[in-house]
Amino acid sequence: MNSIESNNYTIYFDNSLQSLTDLLAERNYSKIFILTDELTGEHCLPVLQAKLPDLTEFDIIEVPNGEENKTIDFCIGIWRMLLDFEADRSALLINLGGGVVTDMGSFAASTFKRGIDFLQIPTTLLSQVDASVGGKTGIDMENVKNVIGTFAQPQAVIIATDFLKTLSDRQITSGFAEVIKHGIIADADFFQEIIQLENAREISEDQIQKSIAIKNKVVLEDPFEKGIRKTLNYGHTIGHAIESWSLSNEKNSLLHGEAIAIGMICEAYLAKELIGLPETDLEAISAAFLKYFDHYKMKQGIDEQLLEIMKQDKKNTSGNINFSLPNKIGNCQINLLVDNNLIKESLEFYRNLEF
Amino acid sequence: MNSIESNNYTIYFDNSLQSLTDLLAERNYSKIFILTDELTGEHCLPVLQAKLPDLTEFDIIEVPNGEENKTIDFCIGIWRMLLDFEADRSALLINLGGGVVTDMGSFAASTFKRGIDFLQIPTTLLSQVDASVGGKTGIDMENVKNVIGTFAQPQAVIIATDFLKTLSDRQITSGFAEVIKHGIIADADFFQEIIQLENAREISEDQIQKSIAIKNKVVLEDPFEKGIRKTLNYGHTIGHAIESWSLSNEKNSLLHGEAIAIGMICEAYLAKELIGLPETDLEAISAAFLKYFDHYKMKQGIDEQLLEIMKQDKKNTSGNINFSLPNKIGNCQINLLVDNNLIKESLEFYRNLEF
Repeated sequence: MNSIESNNYTIYFDNSLQSLTDLLAERNYSKIFILTDELTGEHCLPVLQAKLPDLTEFDIIEVPNGEENKTIDFCIGIWRMLLDFEADRSALLINLGGGVVTDMGSFAASTFKRGIDFLQIPTTLLSQVDASVGGKTGIDMENVKNVIGTFAQPQAVIIATDFLKTLSDRQITSGFAEVIKHGIIADADFFQEIIQLENAREISEDQIQKSIAIKNKVVLEDPFEKGIRKTLNYGHTIGHAIESWSLSNEKNSLLHGEAIAIGMICEAYLAKELIGLPETDLEAISAAFLKYFDHYKMKQGIDEQLLEIMKQDKKNTSGNINFSLPNKIGNCQINLLVDNNLIKESLEFYRNLEF
Repeated sequence: MNSIESNNYTIYFDNSLQSLTDLLAERNYSKIFILTDELTGEHCLPVLQAKLPDLTEFDIIEVPNGEENKTIDFCIGIWRMLLDFEADRSALLINLGGGVVTDMGSFAASTFKRGIDFLQIPTTLLSQVDASVGGKTGIDMENVKNVIGTFAQPQAVIIATDFLKTLSDRQITSGFAEVIKHGIIADADFFQEIIQLENAREISEDQIQKSIAIKNKVVLEDPFEKGIRKTLNYGHTIGHAIESWSLSNEKNSLLHGEAIAIGMICEAYLAKELIGLPETDLEAISAAFLKYFDHYKMKQGIDEQLLEIMKQDKKNTSGNINFSLPNKIGNCQINLLVDNNLIKESLEFYRNLEF
């Protein structure tokens, strides 16, 4: 099976889940817990059990589905369950799900009894290429994404592309936004390669691996986000704000990748204005997202609210809103401060795009 | 000024708080927060301000006094205040208080935006000799002490013995239990020296420093409690259970050191039965605590409840209750499993002691 070495753990590409069997045989865990959400409990857990008929001794902890539930309340629920099931320091938590499960589960594990082992089995394209690699854990609070969290490394990450079959097209496309991002910030050839795909579902295991390898290289170089790791935040300053706004104001709210796709278009506009991203690159970036994503009807009159949310972003220092922007496709600059009026202009640029 | 080097930070013995002035001058913090509880806000903050008249730019976060408030609810309150005051990653949290403030404040800081700088200014004898050294953060949940927490190092620890003048005799004596513990587990001469004191308030800065140096040596050798650090848990398996029981069942509940003092007597009894602690040492240990502490009227009929709480202890693995016990004064063994009946016998031994 293929694998990538990360920060003291291995990322396995392993549909058989043999790597999980091996790891459990090698370690002597006192108890095994599997964290799922309602959806992965229904659709992914049976897949896992079919692959591993011998794995019978575990307890299930389930949280509700959706980013709006990545909260301290549900994290407390996980802690309480671990306590009630008498988890000790030699227990293992397996996070089986998308970013909500992997982010919140790893936060819960990294703080329970000052840290128990955890293992990531990301089941969405988004969490496979993003959330499960890099040692960040987190929950949201007061509209601020991942504002409470730790740096903590899993025992392993297992990428089983079979789980992607359980996803809706919308979920797959959402994850694809981060794949495109990896091309824009670090690898122009990869960008050209993946935007040839007719739709996100055509992504191959090889391309997923390439996407993860890009992110992994960056986080290994800068685990605590002092420098180059910030390039991964491209699209996320504006994108997170739109995502948060949508979560608290819209019934059918945006998925993470959908919001980040909007953020990347807006921030490409900023990059053109500020650091000379070529007009043709701005067009290529806009066209790429235009190919896979619908045009979001971003309400007029919410720009001040969005700026307010951006101000709360973890990435800021001293009240300035901090951006990572590409100066060309394949290369990204960090620590760029942007004037509020220009940010509003970029939102307007998105609104006026012809999809 | 005297100082001790710990794990990438310095412990200053510094009544002038010059070390704080120097640290703030050297770093460029975007905002400074001071966490206090109701008592330290009233009694210690004015002392700090009198020592540092130039420190005027800070926000105060206050939590209620007492171990029963070292909870996730008040931790959420700290996180919300940091968010509302727009703390960014370059903010500093100064924890000014006893163990509740230093444990909970450092947990809040170590998880806010994945970790902001924090500084410990312990104001009780207990937190000076114990909670503020060793990089453990934590809050309690469902009667289990420090069950949620992280390992995180402060930027510095500042010991100003002037703050001890603000304490009641009961508070000072509580902290003294941990000083005696350091003698029992690691330094027989120090044990003999400190039990000569008429009362806990007579403790000198030199003796406080010696006590911290013992703990610091142990935690430097074993920061993540894989081995020798467990010796610091002597008295804490039974002591924590009694403390938790008292917190949820008694109006005038035991202080940490008072409970640990009981735990050390009980566990010295276990040590005599199991690993040959000499009878004379058991008598010396009992006599030491008898000198400074009242006899606690430990209710009959609560032993099963206490055992239930002990089972939840973080230090356990695979359902066994794990003890650290001295085989003589000045030396301590770890990873000892004890039969439930013997534990009950040790509680009975305490109950029957003549004070």
